[in-house]
Amino acid sequence: MVRAAQTTEDLRRSNLSAVLRQVHFSGPISRTDLTARLGLNRSTIGALTSELVDAGLVTEQAQAGGGRTGRPSLLVRPESRRVHTLAVAIGVDRITAARVGLGGVVLDRRDTGTSREEYSLESVVGTVRAFARSLRAAAPSEAVHVGTGVAFCGIVHGEHGEVCFGPNIGWASEPLGKALADSLAEVYGRHRPVSVGNDADLGALAEHARGAATGCDDVIYLHGDVGIGAGIIVGGTLLAGTDGFGGEVGHMAVRMEGGKQCGCGARGCWETEIGEYALLKAAGREGVGREAVESVVLAARLGDTDAQQALLRVGDWLGFGVANLVNIFNPQMIIMGGMLRGVYLGAATHVRGRLRTATLATHRESVRLRTPVLEDDAPLIGAAELAFARLLADPLEAAR
Amino acid sequence: MVRAAQTTEDLRRSNLSAVLRQVHFSGPISRTDLTARLGLNRSTIGALTSELVDAGLVTEQAQAGGGRTGRPSLLVRPESRRVHTLAVAIGVDRITAARVGLGGVVLDRRDTGTSREEYSLESVVGTVRAFARSLRAAAPSEAVHVGTGVAFCGIVHGEHGEVCFGPNIGWASEPLGKALADSLAEVYGRHRPVSVGNDADLGALAEHARGAATGCDDVIYLHGDVGIGAGIIVGGTLLAGTDGFGGEVGHMAVRMEGGKQCGCGARGCWETEIGEYALLKAAGREGVGREAVESVVLAARLGDTDAQQALLRVGDWLGFGVANLVNIFNPQMIIMGGMLRGVYLGAATHVRGRLRTATLATHRESVRLRTPVLEDDAPLIGAAELAFARLLADPLEAAR
Repeated sequence: MVRAAQTTEDLRRSNLSAVLRQVHFSGPISRTDLTARLGLNRSTIGALTSELVDAGLVTEQAQAGGGRTGRPSLLVRPESRRVHTLAVAIGVDRITAARVGLGGVVLDRRDTGTSREEYSLESVVGTVRAFARSLRAAAPSEAVHVGTGVAFCGIVHGEHGEVCFGPNIGWASEPLGKALADSLAEVYGRHRPVSVGNDADLGALAEHARGAATGCDDVIYLHGDVGIGAGIIVGGTLLAGTDGFGGEVGHMAVRMEGGKQCGCGARGCWETEIGEYALLKAAGREGVGREAVESVVLAARLGDTDAQQALLRVGDWLGFGVANLVNIFNPQMIIMGGMLRGVYLGAATHVRGRLRTATLATHRESVRLRTPVLEDDAPLIGAAELAFARLLADPLEAAR
Repeated sequence: MVRAAQTTEDLRRSNLSAVLRQVHFSGPISRTDLTARLGLNRSTIGALTSELVDAGLVTEQAQAGGGRTGRPSLLVRPESRRVHTLAVAIGVDRITAARVGLGGVVLDRRDTGTSREEYSLESVVGTVRAFARSLRAAAPSEAVHVGTGVAFCGIVHGEHGEVCFGPNIGWASEPLGKALADSLAEVYGRHRPVSVGNDADLGALAEHARGAATGCDDVIYLHGDVGIGAGIIVGGTLLAGTDGFGGEVGHMAVRMEGGKQCGCGARGCWETEIGEYALLKAAGREGVGREAVESVVLAARLGDTDAQQALLRVGDWLGFGVANLVNIFNPQMIIMGGMLRGVYLGAATHVRGRLRTATLATHRESVRLRTPVLEDDAPLIGAAELAFARLLADPLEAAR
């Protein structure tokens, strides 16, 4: 309950952080606007931006004259091409790596499809290392790598991914973060922090920072593939839970009796009714993966009644669980990501119908249902934000 | 995403706030311990405590000699008998008011049973005014009232209780906060802020500050009477939701089909299976209210098989919903308050059995189930904390 006390050094650090966050999240901004937004005086802002310029994190330049008289306010820009992170997304079917510059710009990217049966720690680390090497070779010589962020399709223990469980890719307990940190040290010539997060959590962070939920502080990002997870932002902060395992909404039970067996060992979990297997089985399809899901959504749109029935059935259960989340969290927005995007778009009327009958009127009025603006890149962009977090919290220390 | 920048005036205010919070939540504490806990130097702490002494919020006195040599560190105490709030709890069956001193001490109290059929805004305001007048008459002449906090058994719109909905006491939409503020101004001779919160939310705050969940930053406090609500603390902060209506877990649907009609208009809500009516009906009892519930719990303990069956049935559904909350929130603790306390104590094995089969192993290991240390006073103590919040955030301004 007790807030930590503060020193003048904390104050300087927090103000440098506030300025860099503005530049990172809002893009190029004038000193005058920084002064107004942060409520600090002009000379303080000038001193802070000068320090950030000296650290190579931002540049300042005169603005093109907008017809106003007097000396124009300097424009402060993030050093996007110079300061960057390596963002990695390890999905059930795909591995992606990108160089993402300060300001959230994807500068360059590599990706490959994978088979979930052939996943091993070695193969994943090898793929990421090869991508990192290739991205580094293509980067300009002055580029500075400030860290790596990883979005992982499973449960992540520890902020550096000390132990990762990936039931849907057959991982029992793998030291992903350490293995990646060691392997990437070879690429970059020195050890740099590797931060690992759950893909739904990072999708939520990304949509909150730069996507559908900009300005919304109470947001649930649902990510679906074989399993269903959520990144839940409460009052602007990601819901972590006491171990960092919060948001396992796929294991919300929706049936007391007669539920299907779930991979977690329980019966009747939500993901047994709305996950990839549930949709494909309801549609009478063979195969797995996002492509199989998309083909059901497409078939339904083209008039295939089996596919339509499957989509409506899954949409009904999607609405059932979403209604629960609305009543529990009173969110401003729920975003349907991964395979749920297609299910939602194909069964939106059904989902909304369930919400109309099963949510409290007060809660229903406030909530908007959306799909991710960053589409399938939301976890990747969130991984970049994870890697930028240290720099943004303490710009001069982390830039060293 | 952007943190506000800070000035030296913010810094002083936040340090005064940090010191007063320590004294309020930890009780009497020496200057030396304040120095250590807050990481500030001795002279800064001395200056801050002197300001708080001048404002009449704390006293400083030499400690009784502990056998150590040298000048003993001054002991800083909250001015509990002088600085106080009026805390009010408006429950379904009972209205309570108390004078609660800085440091969370209940100095004096009044209460009365009520019938939920006879509730009206006028009768509630009249009762609270009479209690406030009586408490004031009994208070020492130097006592300073710094505000009123109210725990209300329903949905509260606005931090000052601009509109309150109490479906379980027949309130559609009442301006409780304004009516109380006007009425109490007559008692205290001037307008003082009245803050109103949901009783489950305030129970959570109280158990977090001074009860079972001290030191736990991820806690769910469940409150049961006719309805079921939750106060949910995520990372140390109360989950509000976008309108302040978060935590309506009683309206989590637990049946897709065949659910009972709920007061909210939907079917199959959790509270239709575990609320007061569900228990009394399952036990074949007439009557309503906490006493009727307690008589079922007692009968079960004495061997009445109908009462036992009813308790186990409700306990099973209690475990079903609690398991969902464990998977969604990964909390460190869940506290069963109101009528759920008796249900949980009478069916603990059943509740825990359901948790064993329906929660993720990682989540199950971390969660503890508890009953409120503050017992039925949790919402009342939370109401006092609500009223102290302004003073704690800005001690000198609010003490004026």
